[in-house]
Amino acid sequence: MSKPDKNTLRLIFPQWQGGDNPPYYLGSRLLAWLAPPSHGPVEEVPVDAPTDTPLPLENDMRGRSVLVKQIKAAQAIIARHQPRSIAVLGGDCLVSLAPFAWLAEHYGDKLGVLWIDTHPDVQTPEQYKNAHAHVLGALMGHGDPDLTNAVKQPIAAKNVMIAGIHDPLPYETRFIAEHGIRTCSPQQVREGAQPVMQWLNDSGIEVLAIHLDLDVLDPHNFRSLLFAKPGRGKHDFGDVAEGKLNIPDVLKLVGEVMTEKQVVGMTIAEHMPWDALNLQQMMQQLPLLGA
Amino acid sequence: MSKPDKNTLRLIFPQWQGGDNPPYYLGSRLLAWLAPPSHGPVEEVPVDAPTDTPLPLENDMRGRSVLVKQIKAAQAIIARHQPRSIAVLGGDCLVSLAPFAWLAEHYGDKLGVLWIDTHPDVQTPEQYKNAHAHVLGALMGHGDPDLTNAVKQPIAAKNVMIAGIHDPLPYETRFIAEHGIRTCSPQQVREGAQPVMQWLNDSGIEVLAIHLDLDVLDPHNFRSLLFAKPGRGKHDFGDVAEGKLNIPDVLKLVGEVMTEKQVVGMTIAEHMPWDALNLQQMMQQLPLLGA
Repeated sequence: MSKPDKNTLRLIFPQWQGGDNPPYYLGSRLLAWLAPPSHGPVEEVPVDAPTDTPLPLENDMRGRSVLVKQIKAAQAIIARHQPRSIAVLGGDCLVSLAPFAWLAEHYGDKLGVLWIDTHPDVQTPEQYKNAHAHVLGALMGHGDPDLTNAVKQPIAAKNVMIAGIHDPLPYETRFIAEHGIRTCSPQQVREGAQPVMQWLNDSGIEVLAIHLDLDVLDPHNFRSLLFAKPGRGKHDFGDVAEGKLNIPDVLKLVGEVMTEKQVVGMTIAEHMPWDALNLQQMMQQLPLLGA
Repeated sequence: MSKPDKNTLRLIFPQWQGGDNPPYYLGSRLLAWLAPPSHGPVEEVPVDAPTDTPLPLENDMRGRSVLVKQIKAAQAIIARHQPRSIAVLGGDCLVSLAPFAWLAEHYGDKLGVLWIDTHPDVQTPEQYKNAHAHVLGALMGHGDPDLTNAVKQPIAAKNVMIAGIHDPLPYETRFIAEHGIRTCSPQQVREGAQPVMQWLNDSGIEVLAIHLDLDVLDPHNFRSLLFAKPGRGKHDFGDVAEGKLNIPDVLKLVGEVMTEKQVVGMTIAEHMPWDALNLQQMMQQLPLLGA
């Protein structure tokens, strides 16, 4: 089970506007290039390539109108295919909104969401203007209407587990406590992810959607991340939590949940390939290649 | 001048055996994927994908027979196209052997070689078993016959400049001194590369082949390098010199020489994309993608 087959839609979603960070565009394309061959349909959500024009702040959300357009485009693709399972190659974290909303509609209360991320993504425009930090909240029916409108069947808090999270912001801590969302720290993940396995047993979940924000990884060992920006200063990212896991930790966690439940959604998000981007720009200026 | 045109052969050369390091295979393919579109023919030198079987040490050179086969394959492709200029996307440093030998034959004593590298690549099997460290020596006619046989017209020492080099090994220091090869330190490169410009004026060079070993870059800022291996220990690489330049330094140097001379050869070598490799392997194990 959880094997890709002809009913798995692969969605390449190079959305960068949700994080207001152009390198996510190349990050999505590069993931698609690196991924194993697909056994089912492959679609790319139309996203404009980044330009020098800054994204407008629209009613407290950066790039609101273009994000809404992309969410609708993703919904239309999904509706056309009616897939039983979806793999998403992002793009920023917001790429999971339309696919996971569709899975929630299709599987109802049987769907669990395993959110593998340093951050809970439950903020709203009131706390933060970039919608990639709003997506899990929106999937639960909370936050900005332009996002929650895409969610016909909100996901119940009992069906959500956030793994790899640490040191949430005060608003996030309150949200998690008030809704009773279960979490699993990086250390707990490394020690066998007991809270995740317990959640799978307790909750009546039958199928799983997994969101993997690559930011959950330690930026010292995996450098294609925002936090591994070359030449960054220690406090450049507002001292928010940074990833503490490594790829083998994530694969062990996912491997364990795969033995318990069928996986029907799998997103990889926030891939920011600095070296690839710098090589691409360098080659445009080198003789016999670009210059 | 130096613009790519229909007479520029682009050679994708995923050779990894010269460094006995499999990730160079993906590194070459990824460079090809990232490069601007070509205006001329594009060819890929046939190279077997890495397997778990170790390369044999043959008469003091690691993978000797497969390297000879690849050199001959590259020569055959070049002979078929008779290009006026060649761009090479490696692969380990040995990828420059056949293309630069052909340019030397074609342009004779008018050809200068600008070797942008932390290391001079003038060793022989007596000092080191991996041929990627032998290539500049071989282009000058020195070293192992299986390499020098590919060089019909050895390049004179006066036509060679090594830029970005520092702290060479004792054998390399002696070789450079005995042959009178000019060099330019990383600090000199950053300060305007005066020794390079002087060399271009002095030497009667009319056209240039540029070899860019990405190892010349500071591994703290560009991490798709051997020396930026995730989790490496400080002394894991035998304390050989590591890169001190950044991409803007290299582009400034290349931009300056391009205003003086036409570029007829351009190699990028030793691209080792750790993150891409780890993502590729991770996706093979993730549900709905590979597992």
